[in-house]
Amino acid sequence: MSTPLHNELRKEFQLERLILFSDAVFAIAITLLVIEIKVPDKELLKHNGGISDAAIVDSLGHLIPKFIGFIISFMFIGLYWTIHHRMFGFVTSYNRKLLVLNLVFLFFIALMPFSTGFYSEYSGRELFEKQLKIPFTFYVLNFCCLGFMNYFMWRYISNPKNKLAEPAIDPLTVKIARIRSIVVPFIFLLALPVAYFSNILYAVFIPMLIPITMRILMRVVKKRYSPKNKPFQS
Amino acid sequence: MSTPLHNELRKEFQLERLILFSDAVFAIAITLLVIEIKVPDKELLKHNGGISDAAIVDSLGHLIPKFIGFIISFMFIGLYWTIHHRMFGFVTSYNRKLLVLNLVFLFFIALMPFSTGFYSEYSGRELFEKQLKIPFTFYVLNFCCLGFMNYFMWRYISNPKNKLAEPAIDPLTVKIARIRSIVVPFIFLLALPVAYFSNILYAVFIPMLIPITMRILMRVVKKRYSPKNKPFQS
Amino acid sequence: MSTPLHNELRKEFQLERLILFSDAVFAIAITLLVIEIKVPDKELLKHNGGISDAAIVDSLGHLIPKFIGFIISFMFIGLYWTIHHRMFGFVTSYNRKLLVLNLVFLFFIALMPFSTGFYSEYSGRELFEKQLKIPFTFYVLNFCCLGFMNYFMWRYISNPKNKLAEPAIDPLTVKIARIRSIVVPFIFLLALPVAYFSNILYAVFIPMLIPITMRILMRVVKKRYSPKNKPFQS
Amino acid sequence: MSTPLHNELRKEFQLERLILFSDAVFAIAITLLVIEIKVPDKELLKHNGGISDAAIVDSLGHLIPKFIGFIISFMFIGLYWTIHHRMFGFVTSYNRKLLVLNLVFLFFIALMPFSTGFYSEYSGRELFEKQLKIPFTFYVLNFCCLGFMNYFMWRYISNPKNKLAEPAIDPLTVKIARIRSIVVPFIFLLALPVAYFSNILYAVFIPMLIPITMRILMRVVKKRYSPKNKPFQS
Repeated sequence: MSTPLHNELRKEFQLERLILFSDAVFAIAITLLVIEIKVPDKELLKHNGGISDAAIVDSLGHLIPKFIGFIISFMFIGLYWTIHHRMFGFVTSYNRKLLVLNLVFLFFIALMPFSTGFYSEYSGRELFEKQLKIPFTFYVLNFCCLGFMNYFMWRYISNPKNKLAEPAIDPLTVKIARIRSIVVPFIFLLALPVAYFSNILYAVFIPMLIPITMRILMRVVKKRYSPKNKPFQS
Repeated sequence: MSTPLHNELRKEFQLERLILFSDAVFAIAITLLVIEIKVPDKELLKHNGGISDAAIVDSLGHLIPKFIGFIISFMFIGLYWTIHHRMFGFVTSYNRKLLVLNLVFLFFIALMPFSTGFYSEYSGRELFEKQLKIPFTFYVLNFCCLGFMNYFMWRYISNPKNKLAEPAIDPLTVKIARIRSIVVPFIFLLALPVAYFSNILYAVFIPMLIPITMRILMRVVKKRYSPKNKPFQS
Repeated sequence: MSTPLHNELRKEFQLERLILFSDAVFAIAITLLVIEIKVPDKELLKHNGGISDAAIVDSLGHLIPKFIGFIISFMFIGLYWTIHHRMFGFVTSYNRKLLVLNLVFLFFIALMPFSTGFYSEYSGRELFEKQLKIPFTFYVLNFCCLGFMNYFMWRYISNPKNKLAEPAIDPLTVKIARIRSIVVPFIFLLALPVAYFSNILYAVFIPMLIPITMRILMRVVKKRYSPKNKPFQS
Repeated sequence: MSTPLHNELRKEFQLERLILFSDAVFAIAITLLVIEIKVPDKELLKHNGGISDAAIVDSLGHLIPKFIGFIISFMFIGLYWTIHHRMFGFVTSYNRKLLVLNLVFLFFIALMPFSTGFYSEYSGRELFEKQLKIPFTFYVLNFCCLGFMNYFMWRYISNPKNKLAEPAIDPLTVKIARIRSIVVPFIFLLALPVAYFSNILYAVFIPMLIPITMRILMRVVKKRYSPKNKPFQS
């Protein structure tokens, strides 16, 4: 059973294993997010005036920032999973360096439940009243690292010299994907000076610029590399 | 290695990856359910009159609502897994929108350990004595969202225009599956007015109507679309 | 792409998905076991005379029953995984009932971290001094349910009428596997009367009878069905 | 569907299942590591002088040893995953003993979140001030067991008698892999006498010798088994 086809299948399985291991880490991190949201404690409610729907609603109210954090992080981990999914759709081989890059990327995925829990613990009213910057900074930096690692992986995979994606990926696809992957962490980074030098209230909404910037960028990119310009291009 | 067969296999693997990622989220959520059930605390028992079988049985008694919640949620997550399993058995391709729909669906699966923990924390004697509606509402709404997302996904997948399931699924199968998937969340929704305007004691048993309604519906459906009527139908 | 081979592959993938979902539950349950073992609390040590190696060793000493419980449960979940692995090695098809049987089986796997945590919380010196029967009973019953579900699944799969394993499994293999799978829960059950009517100290060692009984049984079975008897047999 | 190819595929799938189960345990253990790092408690900060960025930074400061532990363990679990990945890349068959060896190996992987939590709980200033040896010993021994199990598995797989890797692995590859796998736990073991007879401060840095020793060793090995010596060798 050591024919070339068999070896080819074996190598493909090794690559699949790398991908499925990554998927498992994604799946666990995305599901663990909810663990940081603690159910309102019955004993505590009993002590503070008794259990009632009003008291429970009140406790749930305090959990709203946690839910928001949960939803945002779920969305972004999901987004990075789809990107990872798309990116490794091109990969046909792997080497030790890709393994390491992928592990570092997964490290920041695994850190997300902590970052989310930390930020959302302090993202209630206090965040704005006391202009708490540390938890927000931690959260934003986690996303930045994720974004930069994603960019580095994309650059490494799409580099034809590394022979990880064969046949070579279409250069335009590479260009667009690189721009997209670098824009996300930069916009996140932008939130930090806003938080430190202006008001954290504005900083919180900076990530919303991501989809808008993306659209504008994509329109610009498409215009520049549209079919009629293409002959001049390559 | 870039033959059409290879590309076909690659695309199929990408789809498998989407499915296995979903399975991992299902598996983690279903196994995390038990984390919300805390072992009776030895130190607490020591303080409250000493450790004895009687005291432990008493503590376990307080955990009964948690076990019921655990069993119900395990059953429903398991059920939705089998539905997901069956549904994606038809899928032969995917697109960005299916990825997003699936992620939103998984979001409500990942929320289940919290909802279950929340509902079962307050589903002991207090539930009926104080007619607590909030935890029950939360739990029911989680199931509703799950059910509606399942319905939307089924509708999206079975729509021949989207070319996600080829050859097109048999229209009768589609019809039955759509009805089944929309009935579940509606019956859950029904529990809410019962809880709010009547007694929560009755509301708790509403979900038991699901299997009964299903059977009646399936009988009606089968009668209408039975072979002898089929010529008139299509 | 709807050739018979394709459909065959698709069906096979559906079966694989069932198996990999089970594997994920096994893997999560086996890894969550350790979560019940809490690291000795630094703050607590500080209050009780200060942090020192002696104090930490003392705290670790209290964790010994937890480690024993962890090791035993790890071993048994691992064992049941290998059995599940072997059993589904014969399966070539599946139906709704196998899905349900497998889910119920997985339910008792998912319950293991709780049972283990519960039993090992009370399996220190108190277990013997106070003859605590409840946590031990819970633990034993969890294993029994696991064992019986395993037996039922095995019986269902190996029954040629259900057409789940084709070609039909060798009758001798079926017989041996059935005996093996039913012996384990029965020996566990045996531990309960010993615990209740004799001393729990003896009951704890009953499971050790499993490997011994297995060997004797296998010798008897092999003698009866040895090649020279075989002609008379079938 | 019971052709030799089908059986071959089936057996291969059984082996894949073993590998994917291992991957799931790796993925869960690596992601659970972060669970031991608790978010700075808001209520606690409120009592100790109020919530402020300074107070949060202070709390985060106390978490630094935890983060270091998290990073180190993440790195090593990742490393052992890549080794496991590489090792099973050679495996073409399996038997009961390999299953057991692999389970014992996974046991020590599953124990990592506890060991890491335990060591990093006491690896702050106290570690050096009070020369706490127990948590460090526990952590080091966990790595040693991991390393030795890895060595035993590698020896078992690479032994041509066991027919687990066919065609037989190149003897030089085997030799190098064996040396590499045995050096890691030995260097970890070395940290223990340093901790007990000298100062734990030095012991903590012993694992850093691993990459250096590896390089020197590899250079020696390559010299001895270089092409020009090869004829004399075999």
